[in-house]
Amino acid sequence: MEFDLATVDVRSRYKLLTALVVPRPIALVTSCGPEGVVNAAPYSFFNVFSQDPPLLVLGIQRKAPGTPKDTGRNIDLTGEFVVNLVDEAIAEAMNVCAVDFPAEVSELDAAGLHLEPSRRVTPGRIREAPAALECRSFTLLRIGLERELVIGEILAVHVREGLLDPETLRIDYGRYRPIGRLCGNLYCRTGDIFALRRRTFEEWSREARSE
Amino acid sequence: MEFDLATVDVRSRYKLLTALVVPRPIALVTSCGPEGVVNAAPYSFFNVFSQDPPLLVLGIQRKAPGTPKDTGRNIDLTGEFVVNLVDEAIAEAMNVCAVDFPAEVSELDAAGLHLEPSRRVTPGRIREAPAALECRSFTLLRIGLERELVIGEILAVHVREGLLDPETLRIDYGRYRPIGRLCGNLYCRTGDIFALRRRTFEEWSREARSE
Repeated sequence: MEFDLATVDVRSRYKLLTALVVPRPIALVTSCGPEGVVNAAPYSFFNVFSQDPPLLVLGIQRKAPGTPKDTGRNIDLTGEFVVNLVDEAIAEAMNVCAVDFPAEVSELDAAGLHLEPSRRVTPGRIREAPAALECRSFTLLRIGLERELVIGEILAVHVREGLLDPETLRIDYGRYRPIGRLCGNLYCRTGDIFALRRRTFEEWSREARSE
Repeated sequence: MEFDLATVDVRSRYKLLTALVVPRPIALVTSCGPEGVVNAAPYSFFNVFSQDPPLLVLGIQRKAPGTPKDTGRNIDLTGEFVVNLVDEAIAEAMNVCAVDFPAEVSELDAAGLHLEPSRRVTPGRIREAPAALECRSFTLLRIGLERELVIGEILAVHVREGLLDPETLRIDYGRYRPIGRLCGNLYCRTGDIFALRRRTFEEWSREARSE
């Protein structure tokens, strides 16, 4: 089945691309307006892209041309945000944060989530999140009329006690239990794990000869 | 546990960020050098970021300053590539494509994968992949000395017959069986799926009142 995207309407393109490019990691982003109101909203057009400098990218849709969402506006005005990562335990709370609340309603209160102060930025991080990345806007690309790509520099990382071995930095996924985004209303758990050993060319050649 | 990334060495930063920002979707990228040699390599610093225009981002590490990997060099020189998506069936083949083969060895031959002609770009797509996105480089950001962010415009989409309902564009994940990237040698299957219904503010208010 083939689709030439030039002939596919925007809504169908969104359905196609979000159905196929999976599983996507989820950023539950906390940001702060100039008035100090804290906003929380989930995004899955998100990933880490570099370690030196440490960068992540966040794709934010505008409500309409010239009308950014609260998260986009806050990042534009303050240059700061926190990416809270999402596990099974806060999945339902994350979904509440996706409700289109009016500006005066706090998503965090509605979702039963709480803030802890961040170390390097003004917006707090979510206490219930298994991990959080404090970020400063590195640059922002406006693409077309309704899309912004925020490239954020990661300044500080928080991880819940017990998830990470501080010596080896190995993570315990059985305790972390992160979830991934699929399309529509669907999400996946990540407990069904397997390993593939990455080989050097020498190792690969040796194995290929012995087969 | 807190980490100020300014005080964490680059290798540990990579371990931390790839352990926490999961599950990541996987792009098995085919690209073509000016000599016509087809290269295939997997990347998980990757996601879709926009539907209008349809864009994805791919983070490519250079081997060393001034020495791009084959994929980065090919995209730089030709502006074209194909993102092949990865399911359980081609996981092991994808892992073979990650071997550091010398330039004269074809990753696809070594992995037992085959090319089909693309519709809009020169590099072929992988026949065994469940889906593929034909892309043209939209812009390329060089970040620091060793990292490139390729922003690609998606021109055409291929999906294996039987995965997608052509009317509703709904995907059958039980047939697709995409895998996600965790850290180190670890990957996850995505078969453990759940749904969270997204609510409008009105629906949420009604439910909150009736509780």
